[in-house]
Amino acid sequence: MNKFVEYRREFHHYPEIGWREFRTSARIAEILEEMGYKALMGTAVINEESVTFEMLTDEEKKAEKERAVAQGAMAEYVERTEGYPGVIVELDTGIPGPTTAFRFDIDCLPYQEPKKEGFRPYDEGYISCNDNCVHACGHDAHAAIGLGVAAKLMEKKDQLKGKFRVIFQPAEERYHGAQAIVDKGHLDDVDNFLSVHMALTGDGYPLPSNTICCGCKDFLSDNQLDITFHGKEAHPCGASQEGKNALLAACTAALNLHAIAPHEAGMCRVNVGILSGGEAVNTIAGSAFMSVEYRGSTQEVSQYARKRVFDILDGAAKAHDLEYTYVDFGEVPAGASDDAIMEVVQRAAEKVEWFNKKIYFEGSVGGTDDASVMMNKVQEHGGIATYIGIGCDTTMTLHNAEFDLDEDSIPAAIEVLINAAEELNGR
Amino acid sequence: MNKFVEYRREFHHYPEIGWREFRTSARIAEILEEMGYKALMGTAVINEESVTFEMLTDEEKKAEKERAVAQGAMAEYVERTEGYPGVIVELDTGIPGPTTAFRFDIDCLPYQEPKKEGFRPYDEGYISCNDNCVHACGHDAHAAIGLGVAAKLMEKKDQLKGKFRVIFQPAEERYHGAQAIVDKGHLDDVDNFLSVHMALTGDGYPLPSNTICCGCKDFLSDNQLDITFHGKEAHPCGASQEGKNALLAACTAALNLHAIAPHEAGMCRVNVGILSGGEAVNTIAGSAFMSVEYRGSTQEVSQYARKRVFDILDGAAKAHDLEYTYVDFGEVPAGASDDAIMEVVQRAAEKVEWFNKKIYFEGSVGGTDDASVMMNKVQEHGGIATYIGIGCDTTMTLHNAEFDLDEDSIPAAIEVLINAAEELNGR
Amino acid sequence: MNKFVEYRREFHHYPEIGWREFRTSARIAEILEEMGYKALMGTAVINEESVTFEMLTDEEKKAEKERAVAQGAMAEYVERTEGYPGVIVELDTGIPGPTTAFRFDIDCLPYQEPKKEGFRPYDEGYISCNDNCVHACGHDAHAAIGLGVAAKLMEKKDQLKGKFRVIFQPAEERYHGAQAIVDKGHLDDVDNFLSVHMALTGDGYPLPSNTICCGCKDFLSDNQLDITFHGKEAHPCGASQEGKNALLAACTAALNLHAIAPHEAGMCRVNVGILSGGEAVNTIAGSAFMSVEYRGSTQEVSQYARKRVFDILDGAAKAHDLEYTYVDFGEVPAGASDDAIMEVVQRAAEKVEWFNKKIYFEGSVGGTDDASVMMNKVQEHGGIATYIGIGCDTTMTLHNAEFDLDEDSIPAAIEVLINAAEELNGR
Amino acid sequence: MNKFVEYRREFHHYPEIGWREFRTSARIAEILEEMGYKALMGTAVINEESVTFEMLTDEEKKAEKERAVAQGAMAEYVERTEGYPGVIVELDTGIPGPTTAFRFDIDCLPYQEPKKEGFRPYDEGYISCNDNCVHACGHDAHAAIGLGVAAKLMEKKDQLKGKFRVIFQPAEERYHGAQAIVDKGHLDDVDNFLSVHMALTGDGYPLPSNTICCGCKDFLSDNQLDITFHGKEAHPCGASQEGKNALLAACTAALNLHAIAPHEAGMCRVNVGILSGGEAVNTIAGSAFMSVEYRGSTQEVSQYARKRVFDILDGAAKAHDLEYTYVDFGEVPAGASDDAIMEVVQRAAEKVEWFNKKIYFEGSVGGTDDASVMMNKVQEHGGIATYIGIGCDTTMTLHNAEFDLDEDSIPAAIEVLINAAEELNGR
Repeated sequence: MNKFVEYRREFHHYPEIGWREFRTSARIAEILEEMGYKALMGTAVINEESVTFEMLTDEEKKAEKERAVAQGAMAEYVERTEGYPGVIVELDTGIPGPTTAFRFDIDCLPYQEPKKEGFRPYDEGYISCNDNCVHACGHDAHAAIGLGVAAKLMEKKDQLKGKFRVIFQPAEERYHGAQAIVDKGHLDDVDNFLSVHMALTGDGYPLPSNTICCGCKDFLSDNQLDITFHGKEAHPCGASQEGKNALLAACTAALNLHAIAPHEAGMCRVNVGILSGGEAVNTIAGSAFMSVEYRGSTQEVSQYARKRVFDILDGAAKAHDLEYTYVDFGEVPAGASDDAIMEVVQRAAEKVEWFNKKIYFEGSVGGTDDASVMMNKVQEHGGIATYIGIGCDTTMTLHNAEFDLDEDSIPAAIEVLINAAEELNGR
Repeated sequence: MNKFVEYRREFHHYPEIGWREFRTSARIAEILEEMGYKALMGTAVINEESVTFEMLTDEEKKAEKERAVAQGAMAEYVERTEGYPGVIVELDTGIPGPTTAFRFDIDCLPYQEPKKEGFRPYDEGYISCNDNCVHACGHDAHAAIGLGVAAKLMEKKDQLKGKFRVIFQPAEERYHGAQAIVDKGHLDDVDNFLSVHMALTGDGYPLPSNTICCGCKDFLSDNQLDITFHGKEAHPCGASQEGKNALLAACTAALNLHAIAPHEAGMCRVNVGILSGGEAVNTIAGSAFMSVEYRGSTQEVSQYARKRVFDILDGAAKAHDLEYTYVDFGEVPAGASDDAIMEVVQRAAEKVEWFNKKIYFEGSVGGTDDASVMMNKVQEHGGIATYIGIGCDTTMTLHNAEFDLDEDSIPAAIEVLINAAEELNGR
Repeated sequence: MNKFVEYRREFHHYPEIGWREFRTSARIAEILEEMGYKALMGTAVINEESVTFEMLTDEEKKAEKERAVAQGAMAEYVERTEGYPGVIVELDTGIPGPTTAFRFDIDCLPYQEPKKEGFRPYDEGYISCNDNCVHACGHDAHAAIGLGVAAKLMEKKDQLKGKFRVIFQPAEERYHGAQAIVDKGHLDDVDNFLSVHMALTGDGYPLPSNTICCGCKDFLSDNQLDITFHGKEAHPCGASQEGKNALLAACTAALNLHAIAPHEAGMCRVNVGILSGGEAVNTIAGSAFMSVEYRGSTQEVSQYARKRVFDILDGAAKAHDLEYTYVDFGEVPAGASDDAIMEVVQRAAEKVEWFNKKIYFEGSVGGTDDASVMMNKVQEHGGIATYIGIGCDTTMTLHNAEFDLDEDSIPAAIEVLINAAEELNGR
Repeated sequence: MNKFVEYRREFHHYPEIGWREFRTSARIAEILEEMGYKALMGTAVINEESVTFEMLTDEEKKAEKERAVAQGAMAEYVERTEGYPGVIVELDTGIPGPTTAFRFDIDCLPYQEPKKEGFRPYDEGYISCNDNCVHACGHDAHAAIGLGVAAKLMEKKDQLKGKFRVIFQPAEERYHGAQAIVDKGHLDDVDNFLSVHMALTGDGYPLPSNTICCGCKDFLSDNQLDITFHGKEAHPCGASQEGKNALLAACTAALNLHAIAPHEAGMCRVNVGILSGGEAVNTIAGSAFMSVEYRGSTQEVSQYARKRVFDILDGAAKAHDLEYTYVDFGEVPAGASDDAIMEVVQRAAEKVEWFNKKIYFEGSVGGTDDASVMMNKVQEHGGIATYIGIGCDTTMTLHNAEFDLDEDSIPAAIEVLINAAEELNGR
């Protein structure tokens, strides 16, 4: 089996949620240093001040790091994370030339992968061994591709000019990883930026095997809110009138949030991803929590969605005579690939036999990825950037617990990125 | 401070959820054995086969027992629980006479008690030290009253006939404790049964200080269901149409469950106490969980509620094209006190100075307590039983996290129960 | 067939909604004048200023009066209504004695009676001939009983003392009729007041044939609100974000209104009886209308319900960024029968052979009837009043379109009222 | 004032709902015959068998026709409608050449136009005089443009070849008009087909003044359903448990219908345009009605929407233990304009001075118009068709009761259509 496919299966077997990718980071660093790189880790990768949300407590970090070691990470590398996952390596050819960066995200999603026969990860033994953790968004493949790109660049070191930076980013799913790396300055000098996503996207979705999409231009901005409704518990038979039912407020809000009317000026999406309310079955629920995100393809749409979300929260709270508070995780911006680099990718793909079905120049992602934070940074100072879709047949659409993918896409992805690197940084 | 009030504050400080009352049980047994009783514990109290739901894993039991010891329980007594909380002691006067049983429940509720100035448990240092655990239903006082009754009975041993049994029952809030004790045979020979509840209930609720209610006759039956909706996760921007939104199914069900029409033949109550759905903010929720209870004052009402509940669950699942499964925790039956023993309590109360405001003969509880399981058992073989409301001013209604009570009610409750014991078992 | 049963079928065949009872009033007046009474009608019965809601326009009155004539009413009597239905007759024995009043309501409900075989009103040809009008609350029988009482009083004129007043009241279902008659002073001098309702109510409901209930004490207060949500229409594909969806606001409100928690201090009922929103299928609904009522057995409960109703309306409007206005129809108060007159009814019923199954002294009505407005007025100046339940088997519960009743209850009801009259006004 | 602008205001003043456009049709025919045309009307225009839904009863037709005459239509023309609105005229140049058809829809929408100062239709006296009728979709302007085109064609008769057909179509809003005209064969021989819509649509919406869009390609298919929930009435205090609340079923359905997840493959829209339930405020609602439409840009999306709609209807009915029935109005198909004729329009527009701001070649309509039925028919036999957007500033977006438009667009629209006619049918 292809070595990078093997890596993908290893990462798949040990999936880790954002900011907990200690095993994954340690293994990536170990493999990269075996190749001859010097791995940047910890606060050399991540700007601590940028991690304002969801960071683990010291105790949690300790437990997660112990788990990582127990799951086969080298303790030395786990220590080098300083409690912050993420790895960056750089190849400096010594010859003047542009700086080209590749970005690969490495975190997983919080679902339970089903252990059932007929599902390849189970049958072939690489199913997730971590509860409520699954690589259902293909980041296991992204990490493997990143290792492949690093390996090939090292091999071709003498035939290339300029510098290459390979970025393994934590915490994409909740969007805080990219910003923390940007804030450390790793994108400040980048001329060319390439990132990839499996199965995204051409004239439909998912993007099938043997196809590729050279760039996406329609990232949606994304805002996430954690909301808490503060009601009042009461006994449902002894004092029902005293209760302020936070759970019904949340349910009323959830239904109305999903019923927000579309916006004609662009894509508008609102999702209540998590709702959790109540304390005991025999008690009127005194509190409820809700994680909501809204996305828009333009500022106007995004602001419309925000207004509607808060109207509905206000209304649900009022209807149940209670208050709510919220944490606003801020905005991941919209973003777009550049034609100039998409054209390079197109030529690079034409040289890869595997992409023999269709090469899409542009695709519609209709979603969000915090790669846009890096892309915007690169474009700010005149660089060019693209977000490439690697076609691969899948068992299910992305973000489904039963997701698996055509692994032949992995070597093909490595090849197209190397081809692009060669054109971008010349020989 | 009255010793039994001190015990109440100790129990308040270390509240424990049903089937986790290891510290409480160990302390109760320790105190009782100091009085000269021999405490029955563990499987001598609890019929293991009856505990079919919510029993802790061995690992959880171990952790809870360690916590109990860390919180001051004697390890020897914790061991004697054999993993099952609950304590029973018996006083046999040696003189022929009736068997009279007293029952006190000892578990707490899963809320967070607020640590704020002006709230007496906080100001005077007996606020809960266990997260999400609070004695918001007065069972701390019940346990203290039970200790007081046991102490006084022992003192008066030589002036009494027959036998006395004092039962400290775990797990009332989710209703499995009483059945497990009944199934062990502890109510089979009981002629007179007395149980108490703080602040319940005369011609209104809560029952204020200096009043008492000699018996309640209108317990509601209660059924609890744990429901899981099985939908399908999907990316809300990439494959929204693939999702089967379990969270919206649950919210739709919750709103409709609370909107079930009343029944004219009696009291009918439906509560969605807990709802928890979704996996990640950026994912259409693939599963959702809901704890629901329905109560009825008659079989007809209860069956009506059950039919409506399942119609709504079926409908919500159908609307979102998904399935649901459920665990049915069975029925806690309705129950009623007997006039004969209520009259004894009335005379007993007339002798207690503290009950100088009002003595209610009968009150309406309009709720459920699994004391009814024991009462029904006693009545089956010709015994008589009552469920007494002890008036006490409170900061809040029952089942509110900020609940505290007038502790002068504790010695008064002990006194009335001893007075009743004297009349029931003669001298 | 008994003449009064025939009248009942005639009224059943021509049901009329409140303030439209022109045919019914005209026929009642015609029959009463044939008996020898002088019928008061129009503004001699109704205080015009009291009719502030739902009064018909002059044009509507004209059309309804034409319909009444077309359906067999004598034009002369229809004219005498002056546009206000309702009839009062008085019998003055000329001998000093108390004034006893009987009240019968005559309006119907706005449902469609089903024309189907096996349903007696259809099979025997007295099914409603007016669309969306049906006597589903037994007021057809009430009117017939009123005629029977008037007839018997006239027969027995020389054996009685004092005065008798027989009141045929319009518009009970929306509660404005009683007030308008009270405001005209017709209850000011009444010593004894009797009203009846078919099938209401002993220890269950409906009250079966051969039983009677001498009085009800637990009328609920009732408040009705007509609410209009003012949103904004928009094209659902061309400008969806511009809409303010009044229909969704109303639906959100309706679900939450039906989910208002009960109140432990008494009966609390909220009903959204009518909801009507939207303009066109291809338009986001710009407005919506809702008729809501809330009832409570005490002022505290009623005020709780009112607060919850307005919280929910406010919240639903806020959630959809729109406004609402409302018409408040005011409160029909609670009320209770007097033991003194209930005892008279009990003795009167004991003399009626038909009531051989059970005579209930007191029953629970658990509902509202604006007879309470008259009862309160009579009781204010020291009179006594009762609201009697006449047992009768029915095809369906009240307020169901397919309602029919055991007509043998009609002569029995007449008999018991006459017996009571004899005891109250002596010989 | 331009004569055709005057006509627009006249039509605006007398708006008529689909299949009720008797005044509008009569006036159009009268004006066209004054120009020298022979107007086809009634069953010469409309295929009676195709009108399967919503056709008026004979009585309603009679009333509407009387109204039309009362509002200034000539009785003779009203009679010639034979109860079916719609007018077609043809100009045969006598010289061989293509057949070119123009289509203009003439019905209004069922809203109430606001009579308030500052709103031009009110200030200048052309505000709707028909209750709940308003030209909020610009069909008043369409009709006026149609008259202008007919007038100019007649003027230029001698400079043109082939045939011209000008179609004034009733009942676009509920989509039955186009099919009824197609089924009569009026599109069978058409080579070139042009239709217009005000304010639709370029790279945004609404399309502003001084711009034009030569054709739209993205019509959505549209399906409309009229749903009735059949529950059971009950008294909300006397027999609440007997009710089957159709209103709550409908509200539950409405919220969930608006919360149907989008589809990634294209535009998907679901709207509950009308909801009407309940019989009386003091009755649990026994029935409810709902008008729903769903649209999709592809068959896959449309079928997804249909499945979701029926899942939700099934679920809402199940949850409330009742049944529903529905009328399916069938599908108005998607459709697309042809480049060949759009290019003609582009050249035609370039000659019109008024369109000096922007000429869009293609625009996104993102909606439905049953012009697509005619376009599909023409394209079937090899003809070409377009749906042109005429830019015009508006007070509000389409389908809003307070809609008014820049009338300078009317002569400009006439001019561009005549220019196109000249190129299409040559000289």
